[in-house]
Amino acid sequence: MKEEKKKKLSMIVFSGDMDKLFAAFAVATGAAASNMDVTMFFTFWGLRALKKKARTGKSFFGRLLGLFYGGDINRASPSKMSFGGIGRWMFKKMMKAKNVPSLAELRKMAIDLGVKLYGCQMSMAVMEIPKETMIDEVAQCVGVATFIEQAQQSDVTLFI
Amino acid sequence: MKEEKKKKLSMIVFSGDMDKLFAAFAVATGAAASNMDVTMFFTFWGLRALKKKARTGKSFFGRLLGLFYGGDINRASPSKMSFGGIGRWMFKKMMKAKNVPSLAELRKMAIDLGVKLYGCQMSMAVMEIPKETMIDEVAQCVGVATFIEQAQQSDVTLFI
Amino acid sequence: MKEEKKKKLSMIVFSGDMDKLFAAFAVATGAAASNMDVTMFFTFWGLRALKKKARTGKSFFGRLLGLFYGGDINRASPSKMSFGGIGRWMFKKMMKAKNVPSLAELRKMAIDLGVKLYGCQMSMAVMEIPKETMIDEVAQCVGVATFIEQAQQSDVTLFI
Repeated sequence: MKEEKKKKLSMIVFSGDMDKLFAAFAVATGAAASNMDVTMFFTFWGLRALKKKARTGKSFFGRLLGLFYGGDINRASPSKMSFGGIGRWMFKKMMKAKNVPSLAELRKMAIDLGVKLYGCQMSMAVMEIPKETMIDEVAQCVGVATFIEQAQQSDVTLFI
Repeated sequence: MKEEKKKKLSMIVFSGDMDKLFAAFAVATGAAASNMDVTMFFTFWGLRALKKKARTGKSFFGRLLGLFYGGDINRASPSKMSFGGIGRWMFKKMMKAKNVPSLAELRKMAIDLGVKLYGCQMSMAVMEIPKETMIDEVAQCVGVATFIEQAQQSDVTLFI
Repeated sequence: MKEEKKKKLSMIVFSGDMDKLFAAFAVATGAAASNMDVTMFFTFWGLRALKKKARTGKSFFGRLLGLFYGGDINRASPSKMSFGGIGRWMFKKMMKAKNVPSLAELRKMAIDLGVKLYGCQMSMAVMEIPKETMIDEVAQCVGVATFIEQAQQSDVTLFI
């Protein structure tokens, strides 16, 4: 008896906005719960979703970036109505009121369901975010070729 | 004689920006006109595309959101050069000058061509946008599992 | 002996932001280097990636758009931390420090690897960006039906 091949979902997570990260992890956990094989590639602003609470940056520009766009997944602000942090606070309240999990909880669920998290090597180098400032659950830091390979075998691909 | 299976397109419409909604509906109508089976899942800011002109929100935050991000599809502003509403007005003029349909007209075309419109239950709850404030053509309000199911059967998937 | 069919990637490039264009061209060159058949459809703000350094626009609004969102691929600013041009300058420095190619170099690589570049007719008309203001390597200016056709045959589709 031939076992049925698992369907596969690959996602590039480019955005570091609270609302888009929420959508990304909601789709990822939903797919993993439906028995799909899920891979998320975090690049550019999306790398925030993998960061521990740590100050990053070595060069002047790197430190500046770490300062203005620092922090971990809890610091992500919505893409609209950010209002200098008030939007983030408001959305957290609204989500809690409806018993919707937080971003960090959703990421934990994704990890527990076997979703694979990759960091993009090139943007980690450019943005000066080394592997040791990331959560331990990051599977690997890879180049674009790895994403292409995975995407070719995927049934669903998304850029978020 | 076996009938050829229709190709299928599934789309998550996350954005509520005028230009991105325009792209989403242009792709959807184009695909439906090419005999594809098209499903659009509206979530977060994208829900605006399904709203009737109605004030939404029950809690303080929900009403605030309804106030700052209220209105229906005609209130959508471009993602760049919004200029507090001037960008919207300018793009409408430019589109009209080239006989390009408006967003509302494009949505009507999509509906007439059989494009299925779904609302995302979770973001409707969080953002306090109940089904009765949406246009009647919304097929159903569903969870992420329904999108995953549709996406798995799709030939083309997009996140907009 | 049957030759193996090349895998295919189709991409809608909607954004004209420096960072998103970078991601788009990085994926495109990576895929082409992995022997994939790659097509990029540039629409709306993404058209900037195809422009020569030329002033565009005929009507009042078109000229205004050409003024505020003018220039070629080198004028693209990041989607976050733009700071009125400082962000662009900073990212260029940071990318150069890591020997990462510039956007113009990456586009050249894509072209050399056989990536096909299409412009979206409708947004070219609306935004008043005629074909003659675009680089010679643009394969064709096409409608949405052409994208749908290509996407149906693709293994990977992305909206960036």
